Amino acid sequence: MNAEKIPDIIITRLPVYLRALQHMADHGVKNTSSQELGEHVGISAAQIRKDISQFGEFGKQGTGYSIPYLLDKLREILKVDRLWDVIIVGAGDMGHALARYQGFTDRGFRVVMIFDNDPAKIGQQIGDLVVEDTANLAEKVQSSDIKIAMLTIPATVAQETTDKLVKAGIKAVLNYAPISLNVPNDVKVQYIDPATHLQKMTYYL
Amino acid sequence: MNAEKIPDIIITRLPVYLRALQHMADHGVKNTSSQELGEHVGISAAQIRKDISQFGEFGKQGTGYSIPYLLDKLREILKVDRLWDVIIVGAGDMGHALARYQGFTDRGFRVVMIFDNDPAKIGQQIGDLVVEDTANLAEKVQSSDIKIAMLTIPATVAQETTDKLVKAGIKAVLNYAPISLNVPNDVKVQYIDPATHLQKMTYYL
Repeated sequence: MNAEKIPDIIITRLPVYLRALQHMADHGVKNTSSQELGEHVGISAAQIRKDISQFGEFGKQGTGYSIPYLLDKLREILKVDRLWDVIIVGAGDMGHALARYQGFTDRGFRVVMIFDNDPAKIGQQIGDLVVEDTANLAEKVQSSDIKIAMLTIPATVAQETTDKLVKAGIKAVLNYAPISLNVPNDVKVQYIDPATHLQKMTYYL
Repeated sequence: MNAEKIPDIIITRLPVYLRALQHMADHGVKNTSSQELGEHVGISAAQIRKDISQFGEFGKQGTGYSIPYLLDKLREILKVDRLWDVIIVGAGDMGHALARYQGFTDRGFRVVMIFDNDPAKIGQQIGDLVVEDTANLAEKVQSSDIKIAMLTIPATVAQETTDKLVKAGIKAVLNYAPISLNVPNDVKVQYIDPATHLQKMTYYL
């Protein structure tokens, strides 16, 4: 296996397989096939076999995949066999919702700080967190060696905030602001923009 | 142009172009090139030209694209030259955030109803909306001829709720529940799951 050579598109499918396998495991299922997994995720069995085989021989002809084993392997490949510290920038409605979201820790992430520049929000308690001043963002990110940020701020300030985050050492940004971000090649961005996602479907209506 | 033949992957990029072009228009820019647009969205100029040319000759060699014209064309192609009624199912933190989100109407969508099955939430006011009982979901969707739903409910009830929605006429689901949904071929699903999006990036860290 040569990690450098795995196409991005395959990497984007692995978390979907991981989630479906975890779902099966939660229901007590111990083994699965590429056919069954494919039905769960809406991807062909052949594609799943091809994707997974990029990383080694994790299944057996006839008996399929051991779910606990494949879960371990996928977590290892995706590096979520550990807990990543994540910050949220923006304590509006979406920032609140994310700060209170219970679905992160099981899947490799822990929200450790939330920031805002609004004096009315700084100091507010959200779950276990207290909203911190964005003025301290770079320093806190750097001193805590945090690599992942979720941006829930207005589009107008998203690029300048990203520039600061990248300078402070952030390498992965989950961007909820409805704007494309420019980042260096070694920084990854994923986009969550409900209007964009809806527009991907209206074409077909 | 044969709409049937445009690959899905191209359709998924159009809303990103649309968003960037709108951003430029908001800043008073009247014309752009595939190069400039490409820098905004992180996609090659050649890819952009190829994608857009699937739908007609919207640009001119040398002078590039008229932004207002291309905006009109993209909105028409994506069918967001109108306002789609959308419902939210699930009035938790995420449902609240979406119900209060200001970024929909400019981009073709209007949230018209929000539902929950929790008696403590039914009747609650969120912005201009009042949380309605999920028991009335199918009837309301059908009688209002609504085609688009956003699901912000737990994964455990997402499939059964989707089945009901599809039966009532929903053709597009934006799913925030962390689970893959099975739907008929004529129904589209887009997924927003922050943990999955984060896991697409940790591989590279």
